[in-house]
Formats: sequence, structure tokens, C-alpha cells
Amino acid sequence: MITVLVIGIGSSSPGHLTREAVAALNRVDVFLVADKRARTDDPVARDLAALRSELCQAVISHDDYRVIEVVDPPRDRETSGYREAVTDWHARRARIYREVIDRELPDGGTLGFLVWGDPAFYDSTLRIVSQIRDAGVDLTIEVFPGISSFQLLAARHQLILNTIGGPIHVTTGRRLLEEFSPELGTVVVMLDGQLTCRGLVDDHPDLKIAWGAQLGLPDEALVRGRLADVVDEIAELRTAIRARRGWVMDVYALLW
Amino acid sequence: MITVLVIGIGSSSPGHLTREAVAALNRVDVFLVADKRARTDDPVARDLAALRSELCQAVISHDDYRVIEVVDPPRDRETSGYREAVTDWHARRARIYREVIDRELPDGGTLGFLVWGDPAFYDSTLRIVSQIRDAGVDLTIEVFPGISSFQLLAARHQLILNTIGGPIHVTTGRRLLEEFSPELGTVVVMLDGQLTCRGLVDDHPDLKIAWGAQLGLPDEALVRGRLADVVDEIAELRTAIRARRGWVMDVYALLW
Ligand SMILES: C[S@@+](CC[C@H](N)C(=O)[O-])C[C@H]1O[C@@H](n2cnc3c(N)ncnc32)[C@H](O)[C@@H]1O
Ligand SMILES: C[S@@+](CC[C@H](N)C(=O)[O-])C[C@H]1O[C@@H](n2cnc3c(N)ncnc32)[C@H](O)[C@@H]1O
Repeated sequence: MITVLVIGIGSSSPGHLTREAVAALNRVDVFLVADKRARTDDPVARDLAALRSELCQAVISHDDYRVIEVVDPPRDRETSGYREAVTDWHARRARIYREVIDRELPDGGTLGFLVWGDPAFYDSTLRIVSQIRDAGVDLTIEVFPGISSFQLLAARHQLILNTIGGPIHVTTGRRLLEEFSPELGTVVVMLDGQLTCRGLVDDHPDLKIAWGAQLGLPDEALVRGRLADVVDEIAELRTAIRARRGWVMDVYALLW
Repeated sequence: MITVLVIGIGSSSPGHLTREAVAALNRVDVFLVADKRARTDDPVARDLAALRSELCQAVISHDDYRVIEVVDPPRDRETSGYREAVTDWHARRARIYREVIDRELPDGGTLGFLVWGDPAFYDSTLRIVSQIRDAGVDLTIEVFPGISSFQLLAARHQLILNTIGGPIHVTTGRRLLEEFSPELGTVVVMLDGQLTCRGLVDDHPDLKIAWGAQLGLPDEALVRGRLADVVDEIAELRTAIRARRGWVMDVYALLW
């Protein structure tokens, strides 16, 4: 029998873990880690792997666990639509994971997945775990929520994300320009490698932004102001962080 | 000098606290507690007060703190708009708090506010604290994010809230029918005392719901299914919980 723990780890700072997540980490026999990139030469993969193992060392009170890195199948970026490519890629990933489970835990045990932020937001772990179950592996799944990057953004800026009684819309850089409208309320944007919100400056000169990069990490950066006034500063900060670190991860809220 | 800690406590279950929040709770001299109702005869106020003090007892490792309950000014439900009434009420609340601070911490110290879920979502504490600061009190504010009720909902149902690359819209029962549209992606509804989503059944027969009440509490209830199929069951559960407990708090996600 295999138990799968899907554990939200927030920014990977031990302070952002919940007490339940700490207890869950301590139950895991084998951590499965997927990296979307070949490990060795990619700075994000290298840094995130280091953060994960620091986190485990900081909060797991025994040495009785293993970390297995699963090399991801390449995602087909050429054929078909984005959604189809992703779905197919998840199915291949589930197949590979199944083989790893059979090899690493032949007599059962507890498998752990560490998820940045919260597993409920823009993360495929739960989808993959369901696919492993659908592929015929007998799994018990437990999910532990974590502090998402956009909650840390709000906390750092001391922001309430909604206006009084108003809505909050969470979306991706890919969809922002097409979806944007003042009726959406506060718009939170994740997965935006291009600072797409620049395209809103002309039509919405009064729009404000609360931006954060590398939240919870030593090179955390925050900017807040009128989008039109601060978008260049943010772009420069992104470039500077990427130059220093090799990568940058950011999230922002657009507010009225 | 006054330091104000605004601490997200999730569902009030100690397991849902982050390690940072636990450390923050241990720094507080005086907890200010606002109840929207007269304390004694209201079952929500009574239960929530009990949960808060259990939480403090469970995770604070000393006895050197006080809990001061501030009776809320009544909210004017008659005149002007909803937004204006709320704004005015916050201002009066800020004034009362200021008096309490002057009385309880004349030589400075650390004030704590416990916020259900996360302070970033549908909670006025940060607004009130800013108003106290704007009223001339010298405050240093620190914010600690918490697991929101809708994250616990997603975890219990083992749900990813977004479809692949799709958006998530968080809104209130009051706005749901007017705002609802399939383009919003997954719609999360908070602050809905009436199960307003019933009004969507006819136009959207295939809409699904993941619902949860009293999340993280002993009488937690979960239902998931096609909205049309399960809405009556949910309504009955709400009634049953309210009959037993005196109150019910629920949140749900509408999914395609
Ligand atoms: C694949 S999604 C995962 C989201 C994650 N499950 C969460 O709840 O935050 C990755 C996106 O999350 C945001 N993100 C993750 N970690 C971040 C950090 N430390 N600082 C800023 N943004 C971050 C960025 O928008 C990034 O593109
Ligand atoms: C004033 S808002 C506060 C939200 C809170 N800050 C959060 O992050 O969850 C209150 C609403 O949160 C939701 N809620 C709070 N606690 C809940 C619980 N234990 N179970 C289900 N819903 C809850 C309900 O929708 C309720 O109407």
C-alpha cells in the first residue's frame, strides 16, 4: 500500500511551513522530485533542489528518507495546442513515476511530493498523482495546503487583496491582456515571464501594481506604485536579479 | 512604540498555523479581539472566542499575554450604500481601538490580531490597523499569511483550483449571480449565507461544485458533485449544522 503526501511548502522558508506540513514531511520515506529541466546545467533546477534539501534538513528530525529525482520527459512544444501538449506530458510523467514507485517502494510506504506554494494553484502534482492512481496503482492521497506566492506577496505589501466586498481574479501572463477588465477586481498574475502588464499602461493609466520577486528567498524584491510609474523599475530589477541568480520568479497584483 | 502583528490563523486548528505565525503569537503582549456581535448570547461569537483561546493555549509557551475584547460599534445597515456603511464602521472601530491601545499599552509593546484564514482575503483587520496608524498612532505593522478557508477546501477535495493555464475568480455570494460567466474559470465563493449558486443551476446544468463547511473544525462537512444534483443535499447539511451548532460557515468552488 502506497500513501502519497502532497505537501505545500510555501516559499521553502521553514517559517512558512504549517505545523501539519512539518509533521507530514517527517512521515515520508521517499520524496519524488520532478524537474522540468535537465538538472546539472540549469540554475533554477540547481537552486530549487538546494532549497528543497535545506528545507528537509531543517525540519525532518531523522535521516530515514530518500530523495529520488525523476528526469521529466521533454514537453512537446511543437505539435497541437498548449493544453494538449501539457496533458500528454502529464500522462508520460505519470508512467515514469509509476515505474519509480514500483522500484523504490516495492513493499509499500509513504511517498512525498514537495509543492512550491500551495498545490491548489498552478501546479500539476495532484493531476499527476491522480493519473498514477488511474493507471492502476493503489494510492491513498493526502493534501497539505501551503502559503502561496501571492499570499506572501500580499503579506509583504500588507495588502488586503479584495476591495470591500469586491472580487479577486488570479490568472497567468499568457491570458492577462485578453482577460483584463476593471470588473475583475484585483487581478493577480502568476507565470508571467514578460511583465505582460506593461501592455495595460496606455488603457489604464491609474492602475496600481504590487510586485514581488524571489519571495521568501534572500534576494526578495518588492515594488509598489502606479503601474505607469514603476513598470520600468520592475523590468530593471527583473533583469538584475536574473543576471545575478540565473533566474527570476515573480508575481504581482494589479489594483485600482 | 507599538508593534502590531496581524496573524493569519487558518481554521484555528494548531496544525494549520505556520511556524512563523506560532513565533509571532509568542511575541504578543495584548491580543485585541473584535466581535461583530454582542458576545454573550451569540453562538458564533462564543465558539470563535473559545477556538481562539484554545489556539493560544496550545501554541503559546508562556502566560504573559492578555486578551482584550473590543465590543464593535454597531454597523449602520439602514442608511447609504453597503460600501459607505462598512467604511464608516471601520473608522469608528479604529477610534475605539486607539483608545484601547492607549489604555492597555501606555508604555508601548506588541499588539496581536488573530485573523481567520489569511488577512489578505475578505478581512478588515489590515484596513483598521492602517486607520489607527492614520489616526496618528506610531505603529510598526507585520503581517503573517495564513491558510485561507478556500485553500483548505481545495486540500480536502484534493483539487487544483485552476484548469491547466486557466484563471481562478474569488468572489462573494452577494456578487455571484451578477458576475458569473464561464470565462472566469473556477469561481470560488465566500461570504454566501444563502447558497446563491442555486440560481445558476438552470443556465449551467453541467456546472460542478466542491463545497465545505466548518472546515478544520470537528463538524467539518464536504460535498462534491454536479451542482444540480447536490445543491439540495448541501442546503440540508447547512440547515443541520446550523441547528446543531447555532451557526454555519461555508465556502465553495464552482468548476467546469
Ligand atoms: C508553476 S507556478 C506555482 C505556483 C505555486 N503553486 C504557488 O502557490 O505559488 C509558478 C509561479 O508562481 C509564482 N512564484 C512561485 N514562487 C515564487 C516566489 N518565490 N516569488 C515570486 N513568485 C513566485 C511565479 O508567478 C511563478 O511563475
Ligand atoms: C469574513 S470572511 C474571512 C475569510 C478569511 N480571511 C479566509 O481567508 O478564509 C468569512 C468567510 O470565509 C469563509 N470561511 C471562513 N472560515 C471558514 C470555515 N472554517 N469553513 C468554511 N468556510 C469558512 C466563509 O465563506 C465565510 O463566509
